[in-house]
Amino acid sequence: VVGERRFTAGLARFFGTDATVLVGIGDDAAVVRAPRRPIVLTCDPVVVGVHCTAATPARAVGAKAVLRNLSDLAAMGALPDWLLVAVLLPQGTPAAWRRGLFAGIRAASRRHGCRVVGGDVGVTPGPANVVVTAVGHLPGRALRRDAAVVGDAIHVTGALGGSILGRHLRFQPRLAEGQHLAAQRATGAVMDISDGLLLDLATMLAASSTRAGVRLGAELDAAAIPIHPAARGLATTSRRTALQHAMADGEDYELLFTWRGRRPPTGLGAVARRPIGRVVATPGLWLRDAEGHRRRLRPEGYEHDL
Amino acid sequence: VVGERRFTAGLARFFGTDATVLVGIGDDAAVVRAPRRPIVLTCDPVVVGVHCTAATPARAVGAKAVLRNLSDLAAMGALPDWLLVAVLLPQGTPAAWRRGLFAGIRAASRRHGCRVVGGDVGVTPGPANVVVTAVGHLPGRALRRDAAVVGDAIHVTGALGGSILGRHLRFQPRLAEGQHLAAQRATGAVMDISDGLLLDLATMLAASSTRAGVRLGAELDAAAIPIHPAARGLATTSRRTALQHAMADGEDYELLFTWRGRRPPTGLGAVARRPIGRVVATPGLWLRDAEGHRRRLRPEGYEHDL
Repeated sequence: VVGERRFTAGLARFFGTDATVLVGIGDDAAVVRAPRRPIVLTCDPVVVGVHCTAATPARAVGAKAVLRNLSDLAAMGALPDWLLVAVLLPQGTPAAWRRGLFAGIRAASRRHGCRVVGGDVGVTPGPANVVVTAVGHLPGRALRRDAAVVGDAIHVTGALGGSILGRHLRFQPRLAEGQHLAAQRATGAVMDISDGLLLDLATMLAASSTRAGVRLGAELDAAAIPIHPAARGLATTSRRTALQHAMADGEDYELLFTWRGRRPPTGLGAVARRPIGRVVATPGLWLRDAEGHRRRLRPEGYEHDL
Repeated sequence: VVGERRFTAGLARFFGTDATVLVGIGDDAAVVRAPRRPIVLTCDPVVVGVHCTAATPARAVGAKAVLRNLSDLAAMGALPDWLLVAVLLPQGTPAAWRRGLFAGIRAASRRHGCRVVGGDVGVTPGPANVVVTAVGHLPGRALRRDAAVVGDAIHVTGALGGSILGRHLRFQPRLAEGQHLAAQRATGAVMDISDGLLLDLATMLAASSTRAGVRLGAELDAAAIPIHPAARGLATTSRRTALQHAMADGEDYELLFTWRGRRPPTGLGAVARRPIGRVVATPGLWLRDAEGHRRRLRPEGYEHDL
């Protein structure tokens, strides 16, 4: 057992400081040098028992709490500058677990060029949970999820499905890809895939429909959807096909984007180059199979019931 | 039961928008117009069962989640601009409770001139908890807690103790007082009292000792410590005196500050005008009673054991 105060004092040294941090960990709030450009703000939780299990190593819990938020910044075309971490731990959490959690937070933030400048550590009668707030800046334009229009090609930055086998804990937030997309005129709507391709695509279409004042749909090409080997692995023991896993599993943390160039997108690798479908004027999600048959899809994926 | 997506879409309308919000609720992250001055960042949780009880009305839980963070901004001399709210609710939380929570968040943010621009709503196997991140700006200088020096007078902005009787849920974050202090050259160290006068004063002295490279203490004047009527009320049934409640209860959310002017501080009311003690070169906290006897105090208050 260690007092909150002594622990917090240690965190200031642990996370360090730099010239952008005018007042860091240990005061009532952090003060940082604001950039001239707009700032980008996001916060997502990681709750043990929801976003990972009690068996997930503490380092991985900490890393995921950071990476989820960096994926959101990536999907806006932003780069991360500063993090706040609100950590709630059950009484009696082993010191080694707590240290592992903060080590995971620090490692993930260092790897991606940002720094923890504040937050809070407290106790909870529930399971451990970590809420990271990420603050970033926009080197270029903001990438919005409501910017899809009819005729746009639909792309993803990587293979999908089966992330539960481990990828949901250790993924690369697509910060470089977001930067690349923000610099291209042909880029339409962009978001990250956290709840599954179909559900997130439906969200993108709904947002874009509202913005454009028309009802949009999407037609996907079954043969073009990139299936992760983990999805194929899962399919051998589940009642679903590998394609179903790729379309609905979620926590892929790849970017989903639309594209309206004559030429396919370059500089994002082979998977991102090939369109997986197209935005259409017929509402709904549609799948075209190898024989050219078209069937309607239910937008399924991961959604909390509130 | 309502889907997460439909609920989030409703929140965008509920919290509204303004000219500083370039991309608001509903995208991967919020984009806001950064001020030219440094930005101030803080996040503190409210956990049902820790910071309030299961019987606390939902509106009060939401309000407290906002107000705690605004109190931290006030203590930095900052004013609030934007909030993110990460809400975790047990499955099956009644819709009325959820609505009350968000109504409380909105009412508190409107009252103090800031706006919710993003966040996340999810489920937890534990009790409800809300982490608010507040982002603000500094109209003047930053008020630090490590700026106390020997000879400073010690002041508080209001009467202390007994906040558990209700004040811990409905308090005024001392934003105007923070602004006033930031504009005065005589202001030394400033922080808000969340864990109790003695514990927070010890924290202020420890931070200031580190900064100055000398070990500081404080001598308090028993007769000058402003005791809230609620502390007197508690003392009639507890084993502690009203003064003990005032010194150790916590969650007062008043500002604790040091002052090095020849004249006492004006413009903050009668309570803030009268010094409650002085920073001394003798380490430790000391209490001088009406007879002039001096005894050492234990820095007690509210501290999580981690």
